[in-house]
Amino acid sequence: MIARSPLAPEMFPDLPPISGVEMTATNAAIKYKDRPDLLLMAFQPGTVAAGVFTKSLCPSAPVDWCRQHLMGGEARSVIVNAGNANAFTGEAGAAACEEVVAAVADALACRPSRVFAASTGVIGEVLPATKITPHIAAMAGALKADAWADAAAAIMTTDTFPKAATRSAEIAGTPVTINGIAKGSGMIAPDMATMLSFIATDAALPADVLQACLSAATEVSFNRTTVDSDTSTSDTVMAFATGAAGNAAVSDADAPELADFRDALMDLCVDLAQQVVRDGEGATKFITVAVSGAEHDAAAKRIALAIANSPLVKTAIAGEDANWGRIVMAVGKAGERAERDKLAIRIGGVDVAKDGAAVAGFDEAPVAAHMKGAEIDIEVDLNLGEGAAVVWTCDLTHGYISINADYRS
Amino acid sequence: MIARSPLAPEMFPDLPPISGVEMTATNAAIKYKDRPDLLLMAFQPGTVAAGVFTKSLCPSAPVDWCRQHLMGGEARSVIVNAGNANAFTGEAGAAACEEVVAAVADALACRPSRVFAASTGVIGEVLPATKITPHIAAMAGALKADAWADAAAAIMTTDTFPKAATRSAEIAGTPVTINGIAKGSGMIAPDMATMLSFIATDAALPADVLQACLSAATEVSFNRTTVDSDTSTSDTVMAFATGAAGNAAVSDADAPELADFRDALMDLCVDLAQQVVRDGEGATKFITVAVSGAEHDAAAKRIALAIANSPLVKTAIAGEDANWGRIVMAVGKAGERAERDKLAIRIGGVDVAKDGAAVAGFDEAPVAAHMKGAEIDIEVDLNLGEGAAVVWTCDLTHGYISINADYRS
Repeated sequence: MIARSPLAPEMFPDLPPISGVEMTATNAAIKYKDRPDLLLMAFQPGTVAAGVFTKSLCPSAPVDWCRQHLMGGEARSVIVNAGNANAFTGEAGAAACEEVVAAVADALACRPSRVFAASTGVIGEVLPATKITPHIAAMAGALKADAWADAAAAIMTTDTFPKAATRSAEIAGTPVTINGIAKGSGMIAPDMATMLSFIATDAALPADVLQACLSAATEVSFNRTTVDSDTSTSDTVMAFATGAAGNAAVSDADAPELADFRDALMDLCVDLAQQVVRDGEGATKFITVAVSGAEHDAAAKRIALAIANSPLVKTAIAGEDANWGRIVMAVGKAGERAERDKLAIRIGGVDVAKDGAAVAGFDEAPVAAHMKGAEIDIEVDLNLGEGAAVVWTCDLTHGYISINADYRS
Repeated sequence: MIARSPLAPEMFPDLPPISGVEMTATNAAIKYKDRPDLLLMAFQPGTVAAGVFTKSLCPSAPVDWCRQHLMGGEARSVIVNAGNANAFTGEAGAAACEEVVAAVADALACRPSRVFAASTGVIGEVLPATKITPHIAAMAGALKADAWADAAAAIMTTDTFPKAATRSAEIAGTPVTINGIAKGSGMIAPDMATMLSFIATDAALPADVLQACLSAATEVSFNRTTVDSDTSTSDTVMAFATGAAGNAAVSDADAPELADFRDALMDLCVDLAQQVVRDGEGATKFITVAVSGAEHDAAAKRIALAIANSPLVKTAIAGEDANWGRIVMAVGKAGERAERDKLAIRIGGVDVAKDGAAVAGFDEAPVAAHMKGAEIDIEVDLNLGEGAAVVWTCDLTHGYISINADYRS
């Protein structure tokens, strides 16, 4: 049993019900025997769906299923299990996924294509569908609106705390609510620590508009986090919009009346993404890397990720060492334009390097104090252009090695 | 003091003298007070030079110097210090490098442009040239041909053993010798563990031919190794050919009479590169990742490096866990074409996954025994094409964290 992350939020947030969304969790003993490991969420007819999935070229069976059926744009349910990722399981894995989906479709009297699925856990073992299907009918009878905490807990694997967030917004004067849950202990960490997130809202939106909003929010939240640079076969972020709020129709994701919703969704995704980083395996420091002055935003993101993924930067921070030389090294290897003689680096708001050299006689005391804290801020200014990006990561510690060197055995 | 790597070779090899090459090492107390930290190598007039340098966009002052003067193609000397990388040191760093080079040029009565330089150590502090220049005249008087062991030791930083190799070859019937030394404890590891290598031969070759041979050898040796995916600001591989062997002139790197030399040089570079990996910080396992069946060789290399750089793969191996699911994950994130249903993975020569699924009932005992050894073989066959590549890496252990989290402080 791994202790709760020192970076965890103090308490689980209070999530209001979302009209048109119900859920329930149970123990199917897929791997975990003593806690819920199966989540069923159900949505009212007419709910639209959007999704962003792993870029892995070897995706899991449920990712294949979701991608294939998302084009319909409608969803009645999502079924999620922890303990088995059903990845690299070939035809048998696809069949197991379809078997589970069919059981849900039967119980909810809908088409299988309206049921989405996600699995997280060990790679390479076919999902034991027969452990799951016997529970579905009872779960369909136990659905309720106020089970968000159960839902967040049921999808955990090596997570040390359940992750959830809620936001409210207005669309053309009508209030709407957005709730989300996530799991992950690493951008992805070991087999058992895929990043999954499920978001629901009562907003009324066409599927393509929801998809555009979700893609944009994911790009500046989940896609800006990294624990160990590894990408899961199963990473999944899905959003479901029931339409129960009855807001005025919006046909364009860029419409001004959608700005507040977009901002709220983005904020919620950043909150969830940061919680995943805060539960990074072995993490003791939450690190914000802000790059500015790059040639363009994409260059800034690439440089920021090079810093955030550098084992040398991450171990230096674990050692509370303001080792800006390693930051220079990471900038240099990012493959984007950088001029040593223009580069500036700030740690905890203090200039430590500027114009191609260390800042002569900078005051090390406030920097050393900053490094001892749990929230570390690194700013790099390339002084070349207007490109900027912020990414979040955590430090690399003995805890990460312990968790991952001893995981499966 | 860090113990000698368990993966180190049993003994330092016996390097013969190379006609036209002399060297000496001394203690200049740049950082290390109790061991030689300064190496001067001198070459007879007419020696040609070739070099391959870091791709970092923030290279060190000596890398800038070497790149700038390599186009002359001639070398009389190389001066190398350990303890200070003279990187991210702006104009003052460039001036310090030139000061050291000028002292060497004076002592050897040659042009400064014939003197090459390399520095490895802490980033961000200007090289203290005044600690180095007073030693140069005495060093120029102490040059000798049989000091390869001293040379290899003088350039070490966090290395736990000195690294050298020798090979012989024939060029059009004339025997030639190639010696090389290297330092590095990581492809690059912390500030103090840049990868440097200096190679000398008595072969007579035009500079462009030597450069072509060195570039080709580097590509399949040093560029196929990784400890932690980080790239130093100072990585340098240089080769010097004195011509003393008096072999027949060769004007083309692809000439058949050069094949034996090219092979020997490549073999020497692979030997040195593997020694660097064997000294990887905290390493307990030497890992060979062989990828075949990729669309083309570059795709195979990228996939192999994705596996070799994955913290999850490296920690699993540290834990002696044949966790092929993490290998699948790494293949999937490499961004090259891969089809799950065709992928095959062998560990220690045993098929563990094939055709998109685990090999049913494969014998785990020999695989478990293999994982307990110090030499780990991973083979991935994509079954898509003819592309192949081999890379070498080491495991990721508590030792790496200890070395890098506590390094500067």
